[in-house]
Amino acid sequence: MRKLIAISLIIVGLSVPTVSQSGEHPSLIMTKAGVEKIRAELGNVPLFDATLENVKVEVDAEIELGIDIPIPKDLSGGYTHERHKRNFLIIQKAGVLFQILEDEKYAVYVRDMLFQYEAMYKDLPVHPQERSYARGKLFWQCLNDSNWLVYVSQAYDLVYEWLSEGEREQLEENLFRPFADYISIENPQFYNRVHNHSTWGNAAVGMIGLVMGDDELIQRALYGIEDDGLLSGLKDNDGGFIKQAGQKAGFLANLDEPFSPDGYYTEGPYYQRYAMYPFLVFAQGLHNVKPDLNIFEYKDGVLLNAVSALLNLSDADGEFFPLNDGQKGMSYYARELVTAVNVAYHIGGQDPQLLSIAEKQGQVLLDDSGFSIASAIRDGEARPFVKTSINLSDGADGTQGGVAVLRHGDENLTLVFKYAAQGLSHGHYDKLSFSLHEKGEEVLQDYGLSRFVNIEQKGGGNYLTENTTWAKQTIAHNTVTQNETSHFEGKYEVGSRHHSELHFFDASDADIQVVSATETNAYPGTNMQRTMALIKIEGFEKPLLLDIFRLSSNKKNQYDLPFYFMGQVLKVNFEYDAPVTLSALGEKNGYQHLYLEGAGEPSSSNSKFLWMDNRKFYTLTSVTSDSDELLFTRIGANDPEFNLRRDAALMIRRKDAKDTVFASVVEAHGSYSPVSEFAVNSNSNIALLKVAYDDDNYTAVSIEDLQGRQSMFILSNKSASSSKEHRLEVNGSAYQWNGPYYYIEQ
Amino acid sequence: MRKLIAISLIIVGLSVPTVSQSGEHPSLIMTKAGVEKIRAELGNVPLFDATLENVKVEVDAEIELGIDIPIPKDLSGGYTHERHKRNFLIIQKAGVLFQILEDEKYAVYVRDMLFQYEAMYKDLPVHPQERSYARGKLFWQCLNDSNWLVYVSQAYDLVYEWLSEGEREQLEENLFRPFADYISIENPQFYNRVHNHSTWGNAAVGMIGLVMGDDELIQRALYGIEDDGLLSGLKDNDGGFIKQAGQKAGFLANLDEPFSPDGYYTEGPYYQRYAMYPFLVFAQGLHNVKPDLNIFEYKDGVLLNAVSALLNLSDADGEFFPLNDGQKGMSYYARELVTAVNVAYHIGGQDPQLLSIAEKQGQVLLDDSGFSIASAIRDGEARPFVKTSINLSDGADGTQGGVAVLRHGDENLTLVFKYAAQGLSHGHYDKLSFSLHEKGEEVLQDYGLSRFVNIEQKGGGNYLTENTTWAKQTIAHNTVTQNETSHFEGKYEVGSRHHSELHFFDASDADIQVVSATETNAYPGTNMQRTMALIKIEGFEKPLLLDIFRLSSNKKNQYDLPFYFMGQVLKVNFEYDAPVTLSALGEKNGYQHLYLEGAGEPSSSNSKFLWMDNRKFYTLTSVTSDSDELLFTRIGANDPEFNLRRDAALMIRRKDAKDTVFASVVEAHGSYSPVSEFAVNSNSNIALLKVAYDDDNYTAVSIEDLQGRQSMFILSNKSASSSKEHRLEVNGSAYQWNGPYYYIEQ
Repeated sequence: MRKLIAISLIIVGLSVPTVSQSGEHPSLIMTKAGVEKIRAELGNVPLFDATLENVKVEVDAEIELGIDIPIPKDLSGGYTHERHKRNFLIIQKAGVLFQILEDEKYAVYVRDMLFQYEAMYKDLPVHPQERSYARGKLFWQCLNDSNWLVYVSQAYDLVYEWLSEGEREQLEENLFRPFADYISIENPQFYNRVHNHSTWGNAAVGMIGLVMGDDELIQRALYGIEDDGLLSGLKDNDGGFIKQAGQKAGFLANLDEPFSPDGYYTEGPYYQRYAMYPFLVFAQGLHNVKPDLNIFEYKDGVLLNAVSALLNLSDADGEFFPLNDGQKGMSYYARELVTAVNVAYHIGGQDPQLLSIAEKQGQVLLDDSGFSIASAIRDGEARPFVKTSINLSDGADGTQGGVAVLRHGDENLTLVFKYAAQGLSHGHYDKLSFSLHEKGEEVLQDYGLSRFVNIEQKGGGNYLTENTTWAKQTIAHNTVTQNETSHFEGKYEVGSRHHSELHFFDASDADIQVVSATETNAYPGTNMQRTMALIKIEGFEKPLLLDIFRLSSNKKNQYDLPFYFMGQVLKVNFEYDAPVTLSALGEKNGYQHLYLEGAGEPSSSNSKFLWMDNRKFYTLTSVTSDSDELLFTRIGANDPEFNLRRDAALMIRRKDAKDTVFASVVEAHGSYSPVSEFAVNSNSNIALLKVAYDDDNYTAVSIEDLQGRQSMFILSNKSASSSKEHRLEVNGSAYQWNGPYYYIEQ
Repeated sequence: MRKLIAISLIIVGLSVPTVSQSGEHPSLIMTKAGVEKIRAELGNVPLFDATLENVKVEVDAEIELGIDIPIPKDLSGGYTHERHKRNFLIIQKAGVLFQILEDEKYAVYVRDMLFQYEAMYKDLPVHPQERSYARGKLFWQCLNDSNWLVYVSQAYDLVYEWLSEGEREQLEENLFRPFADYISIENPQFYNRVHNHSTWGNAAVGMIGLVMGDDELIQRALYGIEDDGLLSGLKDNDGGFIKQAGQKAGFLANLDEPFSPDGYYTEGPYYQRYAMYPFLVFAQGLHNVKPDLNIFEYKDGVLLNAVSALLNLSDADGEFFPLNDGQKGMSYYARELVTAVNVAYHIGGQDPQLLSIAEKQGQVLLDDSGFSIASAIRDGEARPFVKTSINLSDGADGTQGGVAVLRHGDENLTLVFKYAAQGLSHGHYDKLSFSLHEKGEEVLQDYGLSRFVNIEQKGGGNYLTENTTWAKQTIAHNTVTQNETSHFEGKYEVGSRHHSELHFFDASDADIQVVSATETNAYPGTNMQRTMALIKIEGFEKPLLLDIFRLSSNKKNQYDLPFYFMGQVLKVNFEYDAPVTLSALGEKNGYQHLYLEGAGEPSSSNSKFLWMDNRKFYTLTSVTSDSDELLFTRIGANDPEFNLRRDAALMIRRKDAKDTVFASVVEAHGSYSPVSEFAVNSNSNIALLKVAYDDDNYTAVSIEDLQGRQSMFILSNKSASSSKEHRLEVNGSAYQWNGPYYYIEQ
């Protein structure tokens, strides 16, 4: 990698003088040329002007209040934590205002705050709270100290030329350099990893290095610390590995490793969102100061791919799918996504679809990229952002499984199917799990994390015990748990060595979109293959979600397949007993958190369950056998502090099964209005769902509707080749086709 | 009453010729003059034109499909029921289109449908479904038959002049008169009551009477049947009385009885909404044809007061408070409210605030009133509808308790306090209960009814058993249950004889609004007095809800006071045990439906409970003593069919208490954003809540905040006189004031 950069320096170096050579400031998020353009157009770019006005009001109010630099003491949520956090957000904004408005009061404010920090930092001990594996000084963890430096280095850059040389020397010597050293050299277990924490650390060190023109810091940011003295196998607070053998470090390693070439971040979209800010803001600085690095072209443009992937991993309301540890409600309205969208537009080819996201966000960055996007919106260039079905690979080289999103129409129905790698320390044991969404609402949910981020009353706002005992466990997800044990026995070391494999993904026909994947390591000796298809069939109001979960094992097992529905039970077609007292369904692996609310048996070859959610109807039709058990469960057992939501599931339990197929259809239909009190199309239109054929090579499922129309889906279990020809006889009819699946309406 | 009408006939009769004298048609919802105005302005009144276009598309599609008059067979939700329902809605619209567009195809459609009904009705037996106490012919109950006639009489009126005399005679003889007789004379148990069912019957008979110019029918509509042969004490399907001694009947009696002079309908807003349509549409016809009746001035303008009361009984989203049997989500967007708002505007003095409601509704009636409102909106006359604090009396003469709504600011916080009469057969046993709302969201809920209206999969869409076993019971409400027995022992006959009494209502000061009421009959020997105040205190972000529930009894009792909070438990300041298995809290009176999720004891003189709902924080601070029990409950026990929502409460249980005061404050504060992940003002600001004084004459409660500021609320328990002077010494300080309460910030 170093060699490549050296070459590009030679080629590009002559024609494009780098800003760092001239040492011009500002140069991170604003440039001299950019500032001039902004000043010239002030008052003529509505979205930029509106943001400027809001920021001005906010910063003026803070200036009015006066600077407060309390002695660090609290965990997140507490006063000193929140105050220092607010300080770094405000000082960056004050710097921006100084550049745009040329009002010295903002520069004075930045300078005064910097010098108060300078005065305190010199003698500041490590933060008194001892919870973190890498304690900071201003905050309880180095992570937050790094947040601080990422923002404050921008503020410093923005007033750099206004400060005297003596002032700069004092700040750099007493504050910035020791600060950068503390979060890197003094805390290699934090800094020298592939982890979102380290990305913040790398960016912090790199950005202050860019401002100071300190190549040593920039190198340290890009490539990490050479001799960190860390032992392999160390773990952090979340149970993640700190160092594994042969592991590289630094900003580029953090781009190499957790991102797939498609831009999927292995921890999932919630943490990708968090990581985006340091990635993009540091990259923007590198782009300005070290253009020869071509950072935005690094790894086939992974930074820009990541923005696109992230936007596509959101529902119709812009909320991210809560894969792995994800807090529900986080969305592309987050400030990190304002940065992501602005920078991606400014540097990544001016995609006009990004403008409509920026319009929804209702704010822009007060810098060159924000100005660029606000001007384009003013000029009417915005186009709707169209989300389509996508398949995002996971893993540094894109070969460690992935996440597929199938969408039909205008996000009416969206399937999220996860066949990815472990997802580092924030991963869940949920191979081949899925969630289903309709118009921004959850129909069959992924629980997400068990944490109330920054709500101090709930475990200080940190991860709750239930994140481990419930949220990460397999049974918390819409996938199969074997013998009441989580995938990989819930062992992170084991899970981290494996990933699911894509069988095939085909969204070329909008009316039949299919994804299929296999998992052979979650339960040694058991092969799992799940195929999910969104199929629009004539006579059905909306597409059906066909779910074929095929298991084959070298021994008999109990398979549990839950469906975590949202909303109200309306009707089932089977008998069940509702216990008078509620007890936990099991003792461990998440089962200890499930109450059993009802237990029944199928009364026919199809078990049906109708529920209502968000004023819409849904029916699950599942092929079941007499010996199956149908369990209504509800989360909440052994949860004395009410940390978990009391959500429900219908679980299909199949005992003493070796090889088996769970075939189900989720049917979205109709609606109910509490205003007109009309219930429209409130019943399933499926007469019979049947596994018409099943062996190692093929599985066929037929769907018959109430009007007697049949359709048949045949899956090639082994070959995913699109050219391979297949022949199969099912119930006396011969079928012949090419490719991994065949579908016919009869 | 008859005498009054006769006099007004003499006075007004000469100057205002009634339409009925000339026998002109149309005359119910449209008049000749009105139709001419509409035709002249077509295309110039946007909201009217848009509604017209929608209705035209809808009716044209039905005409295309052809008329279907199936033999009646099904319950509601079934095909024949829904088809006949659709028929009467469409035929009315077709009639309107004929008048406005002068296109004969609509008249032909109306005529053809009428004659198909005429052909069938002659020999039609009583409906085969036997569930109703008053079976209809087209539908399973006379109620729906009456709905039919209310709409179809309008259609008939609209094509009346276009039909030949022979056609009219045939229809009237074979269809309309027998139809009107069937729902009245042949079903007095349905027709001759004070009940929303009867209102529909009365309106149906009266409206067809107005069209036919049949004074006998009109009299029967207004005054009921003289000799109905009904026995006192009969009950209907819902357990309501059919006849009580001395009871009057007919449309005017239905205006007299269930409405208070303030326009509150004793069954509650959900049923008031349902009843509004026949009341207003028949009244509009009477206004046109029998102007001398001055129907809109009847009982001090109760019809128009009722519209205003109903609009004020909605939350910030326009959804009605679910008092008594009310289905949540019903709102002023319902078609009955379109009628109510349109007619109230047209006839009731053109209040420009009603225009903004009509704008939100986005549609108008295609008649004189709808045209009137749409024109005014076009002319820019709309003003915001401002809901304020109100006190609505209950009972025919306004002396049977009532419902108070305290609002602060822009509906930020809204208290609904119920101290009303039983509310006929749809009443709940919830004396002195309340619900709290913030910006259209429930904070402390009223459960509402247990029914899924028109969702056939849940008990045919009818009332579920749990409506009786849970929703009506006292423990389902935010009020005190004594000895685990509902008010009046849950006996309708007893409850119907009593009502709570207003102590006082004072919303004259926006920053301290108070309502206080007493209940002495719910538990003989126990006097209950509840006082609720919304108080804006300096230093608190939002107004506090102060709740003083005072009980005095002639014996020792157990008092249970639950708070049905919505959302997630964050923190409490007391220890509690969470049982490993969940069991029902009791065996009857609603307790059999509550799981006990936690049981604890106060750890200080204030028990505090913090929860989060809709991304806002709430704290309940309650004065408790060591012997109190604090119970976390959740609805859902003994509910094998999942008919109930799994909602939670914190219940304060006080055993072996004779005279006692429950003093609590509900504090709304702060907010949380899952996007910024900032938690703002997430802690209570109350340091100490104290009952500073209590005897039969006075109760004083003091509130101390975390900054040490004190405020004191002193209540005069006996005298509500605003002029009476009081003197009281509390903790060594002397207070002197006039009126029922005193409030001071110290």
